[in-house]
Formats: sequence, structure tokens, C-alpha cells
Amino acid sequence: MSLVVQKFGGSSVADADSVKRVAKRISLYSKAGHQVVVVVSAMGDTTDDLIDLAEQVTPNPPPREMDMLITAGERISMAVLSMALNEVGVTARAYTGSQAGLITDSDHGNAQIRDVTPGRIQEAVEDGAVAIVAGFQGVSHDSKEITTLGRGGSDVTAVALAAALDADVCEIYSDVDGVFTADPRIASAARRVPLISSEEMLEMAANGSKILMARSVEYARRYGVPLHVRSSYSGRVGTIVADDPEREIPLDPDVTLPTADVVRRDAADPSKELPMQDITAPGLEAPIISGVAHDRSEGKITVVEVPDIPGRAAMLFDVVAGTGANIDMIVQNSSTVDDTVAISLTLPEADVPAALKAIEDAHEQIGYSEVRYNDQIGKVSIVGAGMRSHPGVSALLFRSLGEAGINIDMISTSEIRISVVTEQSKLDDAVRVIHTAFGLDAEQTEAVVYGGTGR
Amino acid sequence: MSLVVQKFGGSSVADADSVKRVAKRISLYSKAGHQVVVVVSAMGDTTDDLIDLAEQVTPNPPPREMDMLITAGERISMAVLSMALNEVGVTARAYTGSQAGLITDSDHGNAQIRDVTPGRIQEAVEDGAVAIVAGFQGVSHDSKEITTLGRGGSDVTAVALAAALDADVCEIYSDVDGVFTADPRIASAARRVPLISSEEMLEMAANGSKILMARSVEYARRYGVPLHVRSSYSGRVGTIVADDPEREIPLDPDVTLPTADVVRRDAADPSKELPMQDITAPGLEAPIISGVAHDRSEGKITVVEVPDIPGRAAMLFDVVAGTGANIDMIVQNSSTVDDTVAISLTLPEADVPAALKAIEDAHEQIGYSEVRYNDQIGKVSIVGAGMRSHPGVSALLFRSLGEAGINIDMISTSEIRISVVTEQSKLDDAVRVIHTAFGLDAEQTEAVVYGGTGR
Repeated sequence: MSLVVQKFGGSSVADADSVKRVAKRISLYSKAGHQVVVVVSAMGDTTDDLIDLAEQVTPNPPPREMDMLITAGERISMAVLSMALNEVGVTARAYTGSQAGLITDSDHGNAQIRDVTPGRIQEAVEDGAVAIVAGFQGVSHDSKEITTLGRGGSDVTAVALAAALDADVCEIYSDVDGVFTADPRIASAARRVPLISSEEMLEMAANGSKILMARSVEYARRYGVPLHVRSSYSGRVGTIVADDPEREIPLDPDVTLPTADVVRRDAADPSKELPMQDITAPGLEAPIISGVAHDRSEGKITVVEVPDIPGRAAMLFDVVAGTGANIDMIVQNSSTVDDTVAISLTLPEADVPAALKAIEDAHEQIGYSEVRYNDQIGKVSIVGAGMRSHPGVSALLFRSLGEAGINIDMISTSEIRISVVTEQSKLDDAVRVIHTAFGLDAEQTEAVVYGGTGR
Repeated sequence: MSLVVQKFGGSSVADADSVKRVAKRISLYSKAGHQVVVVVSAMGDTTDDLIDLAEQVTPNPPPREMDMLITAGERISMAVLSMALNEVGVTARAYTGSQAGLITDSDHGNAQIRDVTPGRIQEAVEDGAVAIVAGFQGVSHDSKEITTLGRGGSDVTAVALAAALDADVCEIYSDVDGVFTADPRIASAARRVPLISSEEMLEMAANGSKILMARSVEYARRYGVPLHVRSSYSGRVGTIVADDPEREIPLDPDVTLPTADVVRRDAADPSKELPMQDITAPGLEAPIISGVAHDRSEGKITVVEVPDIPGRAAMLFDVVAGTGANIDMIVQNSSTVDDTVAISLTLPEADVPAALKAIEDAHEQIGYSEVRYNDQIGKVSIVGAGMRSHPGVSALLFRSLGEAGINIDMISTSEIRISVVTEQSKLDDAVRVIHTAFGLDAEQTEAVVYGGTGR
């Protein structure tokens, strides 16, 4: 008997029929004798509707009251899902985040988990019931106020419960079949990745892969929780995110799924079925590159003619960091004609206005001549633990982009990742070219890695 | 400084604009320096919509999960009302029933209050904040499960908090101006009752007056909480339900209400304004009859030719009581031709099917010849503490009905009430005739009570 934590997002429980479908799915595990804890998001657009209601009343809702309001969304979905399970003969009980022991700090709207005390959840599963837990919410440890966990909060709830309950796996259900070697909407030959390390997944998430937020992956990595990212529309195995290949992970209930459910779906349009593909079994052949991630959501600020005096660049970064902006890449170029440097940095577009204002406010201090801003950039990243032992990866990357006429503007690297910034209009081409060059296309069998001088 | 508990029903907070109107109203008390605790129901049709959602998923929702689901309704309204108060410059904090200390038994869907521990509410009002509390809900004392209080549960929440906080008054806001001497839709000359004892109010509630449920009045009576039933659409004083005429009750904030709000409204159609009336000041002239209540919701079962043997009638009542039916009146008539009796009883129509089935199942035991059922009955009641000291009340009642050609089918009385059952088609006439006969019409100045032999 395993303990499985499953998380279903809002689109998986958009209406009564979806809720019934999800309940049937959960019942397979439960009826196969597994202990099951389910974390559920608010149904469909409920959260947006509640935010609209608040905006009709006030432009500045107090964060405490806002949390009280929007947590009603998960309260509804968890109760309805619990009813649907009971209807298909599975005993289920729904619990709020507070009842489930999700203890957080007091940062309303963006609370961090401080502790998990899932006594009631444990009792429920030991009683043989499926425990349904409201995602995205908790209760503050000092003031006992209801809090919400911010973006990706339902995934984090599931991972945190899985860690606290020592679950065998935490399954994250969405409308795509798992993590792909690239976005299938761009690279049509993209394949599902059967197994990926948490380190690689972190790099994917941090560099534009939308399927999991870095926050959840970090939590899972810290507590050694294996994740299984899969589709709620298909009966197939998805992507396992795990670091211990020896650990046994319950992949599916010991029951046959209804044939109608076993389909592969278009990630861009889940209503569209795709042909089945034979997918490499987990762990048998570790590819050099696990996947290609891309990100259109950053902009580039370039500060021109900064005096090349010690401390001036630091001053610039201090000023930007003071706005809370998340700086991603930094490139500094010395001028060949005078004693100045140009400093470029990329950061999320949402952080740009505050950063620009801070830089302009510090014009005299820093002493630069001009600030430029470009929102038409794109970032493409290759991620793979295999990079460590395979030389020539960066050479192949740059050569394939060069042959395709795609200019590289900025470069950054980590142990297991190389990211380059290009023109946004060339981003899709870049994803496809790289996907093919590294042998990730579905019809290819192994990576085409040329020898080289290493990266 | 007084502590005022105010309760607003679902129609008072049906949408964002209504919520803003109610917030403005609450702010008057708060800005006048009173401590204010507000109990609020779910917005408009929210509860019905949630019940519909549950029914789409299962015909038999488990009561625990149903309570979890529908309590989301008050969670939304309390948070939005709190936001609206903060928007008009009043610090407010919303609390669930559980946070407010409403401790109940575990009877999901119809829980009874066991204890009230309003520590957080007390802290909030001592901090100068308005505390908004979700009506209709609590938490069970043994299993810490979320419960709902059943019909009239939001009123009971308000009264229970008022009792626990030793509030100066518990104001119940709805869309009518208070308790009337009769339903103004039937007796157009009906007047608002300025002051009524809790005993009289209990009789009114138990005999068809919809404005307060007997449950809330009983609770208020037990703990000596003065009630003030009034309209959320008007700035006028409504009806005070209290037993100690010396007790000072905060009637209105020390601020002038916006003129547009000071209107009298048609109880049947709150959008329609009625002309102002001069209303007798509370307590100055205690009328003999406080009001005329009516009830169309009962049916009459008649069991014919029950053998007149000791124990047979008791057997009949045992059988009916075993179904949980609320028997109201009982009349037994002996036959003049044989040793049988006919027994008639009235009970809520909802209880009739189960009662009829039980009587039919016990046909052989009881040995009656036939069961008849009549759903076309109406009950009219006069209620007034003045009856105790005024003879001739029943004589006036029967004479006025007789002169109007209205037959009396059954009669029951209490210390301060006389009820009669008539044909349902004559019920409205009966209400008007009695209202006039007892001097309750707006243009009359005193009750027209003829001498008589007492009742």
C-alpha cells in the first residue's frame, strides 16, 4: 500500500462534469488499496470572479480580507469533489488548509509555509478515507489568520503535504502529458521526458517551462519528494521528477483505465488528441540534454556609457535590486573609444517600470549617458545533467544557431544549463533548431553531439 | 458607548452595490463611537447556487461536506462587506463562525449552539474595529467540524453573539420596517408595532409571522437580549422586542441619515415607498392585541370512526409523533350515533406525507374507518399580553368572524393567544376583519373591545 498525494488544478475541476471525471480517476487509486490525499484548486474561473467582486467594492482590498474571500474558491471545489467521491462509493472528507495543518507566515497573498501538521489528514487516510485538501491556503502561525500562498500555491500545498506525510509520490495533474523536450506548440517533434532530475527540472522551471514552478520543485528537492507530472485527461505515465532512480514510485493503480481516457492530447489544445508515441523508458538512456526551455517574459535594460570607475556598476545593481527586481542575466562591455562601459541586464517585464525609474532617479550618482529598453527579446535554454560529462555542447548550440542565421545577444550558463538571448521574432526558430540539433526530435534515437573543445 | 450587534440578511447584501449601501449604514454607528459586531448571510442566491452545484454532482451529498460547501457563501459576503467598510474608512475584520467562537453540536445542517467563546470578536471591537461574522455557521465542539445552524441560523448567530458579548441591542435588518399588526399585504391598514414582549413575539412567530423565527426569539428571551427588527432600506426605528421597558436601548446612531434613506417601504415590494405614518411611541399605550398572525402552511388530517376505547387516541398520536411531525392543533369529536370519535389534527404540510403513511400503516391497530386530508385550511391568530386582563376578547373575535360569514373549524388558545382554523379562501378576509375589530387599523386610536363573559 502506498500513500499518493494528487493535485488537480482549476481547469481539471472547471464544472460539475469535470469534478465527476476527476473523482472517478481518484477512485481508481483508492479502490486499488492506496491511501490517497488530494489537493484541489478552485473550480475554473472562481478565483477570478471573486477578485472581480472585490474590485467592485474597493480598489484596495485589505490583504487579510482578500485572503478570506478567495479561499472560498477552494472551499467550494474541495467540498464538491468530496461529494463526487462519496457518490462513486469512496469515503472522502474535505479539509481547509488550516484544518490540514498548513501553517504559514503572515504575509497575506504570498505566504510561505512554516510548518505542516497534518494530524487530521493522517487520521482520515488511516480511517480509509480519501482526504481532500484545499490548495493555495493556510493559517498563520502567530495570528491564526487565513493566508494564501501566492502563485503556484496549490502545487506547493501538495508537495508540502507529500513531504510531511512521507508520501510515495506527489502527482501533479494538469492538461498536458508531462514535461516535454520543448514546447510542443513550437517544436512539433517534441517528446515527453520520462524522467528528469530535480536539478534539471529547477533549471527548466527557472528558464520558462510553465509546467511546474521553481518553488514547488525546490520544496520537493529539499524533502526528497518524487513528483509525477501528468495529464488528468490521459491514463499514461507522465514525467517523473526524482533524484533516486532506485526508489520505487507507484505509477498507476492496479486497474485498467477506461480506454476512452487513454489518449495523448495536444498541450496547446487539450481537446485535440494526438497519435500515441513510443517513449523511451525512464532511466534507460539518459540523454545529454533533457529539454529546451524558452521564455518571452523578460525585457532588457541597457545602461550606456557608465564611467569605468570602481563601484559605479555596483551602484547600478544596488539601485535595481532595491526595487525588488529579479535580475536574470548581466553583460558588461567595455568601450573601445573611452573609459566607459555599457551594462545590459535582463529581468521580468513586470519588474521593468520600477527598475527604470530607480535607474533614472540615480542618473547623477551613476553618471551614465543613456538608458535603453528592449522588450522584444527571447531567451532559449538547454538543460541537461549530461552536459557535465559531454564536451562540445556549447559549440553545437552556437553552431546550430549560427547556421540558422540566429544572432546571440547574451549568454549565461550554469553547471547543467546554457541560456542565450535572441531577438524575440527568432525565438521559435531557435527552439526548433536546437531541439533537432540535440537529437530530441521524436524520430531521432540519439543525441547528435559533435566533438569539440568543450564549453 | 454601546455595543450593537447587527444582522443583515442575504437580500440586504445581494450584490456589490447593496454591500456598499450596508457598509455605509454600519459606518454610521461605528463613526458615532459605538462598538459594532455585524452578522451577515450569504449574498443573494449564493446558497441556492451552491446547493444546485452539489445536486449536479450527487443526489445525496454527505451532510458534513454540504456544510463545508455552503459555508463558503457567508465567507464571501463577510469578506466583501469587510472590504467595503475599510473602503469607507472604517477598520473592519471578517471572521468565520468558527473563528468567532460559535461552538455547536455535530448535527450537520441543523446544528444547535452549545457555547459561544467570542474572544477574537471582543479583541477586534476593543481594538476599535468592526467585527464581521459569518452567520449560520459554527464548529462542532467534539470533532472540530464546520457545521451550519439550519433555518434562521443567521438570526440565531446574531442573538447568540449579542448574548455572549452582553450587547445593548441585537438589530435584525431585513427588507420590512419591523413587526406589523398584520401582514400589510393583506390588511393594508396594518401598523408597525413599536414594542412587543418576547412572549408575544414568540406566539407571533410560532403562528405564522415570518419576520423572526421562534428559535431566535427564544434565545433572546432566555438571555435577556433586546431585539430591534428594522429595515435596511429605511432610517426609521422598527420594532423593539424586549421585556424590560426600563432598559435603555440604542435606537440609532447620533448622526442624521441621508434623507433619501428615510422612507417607509411596502413590505411586499420593497422598491415601493409608502407614506409616512405617525406611530404610537413604544410603551405609551399598550394595546390589548399586539398583532394578527396568519399561516397557510399547515394541513389538516382527520381520522374518522376511531373506536372510543381508552388508548386508541394515544396510539394515533404515538404513530404520528414517531414520524417527527410537529402536531399543532388537535380536536376530538364524539359521534352521536355510535361509540367512535373523529380526531382532527393540523401539522406543517411538509410533515403530512410521512404522517399519513404512518397512520395508514397502523390501520389495523387503531381500527379507524377512514383518513381524510385537507390542505385548504388557514390559521389566523391574535396575540397580545393584554388578553390576560381584558375579558371579552374571544367573544369579539368569534362575533366579528361570524358577522363576516367566516366559519370556524378548530380553535386553540394559550395565555396570550387565540388561534382559529378557517377555510383557506377566507383567511385574508379573516385577517382584515379581526384587524379592524380590535382597533388595529392605522386610523383607529384605541381597541374596540366589547364587554362579555370572558374567554
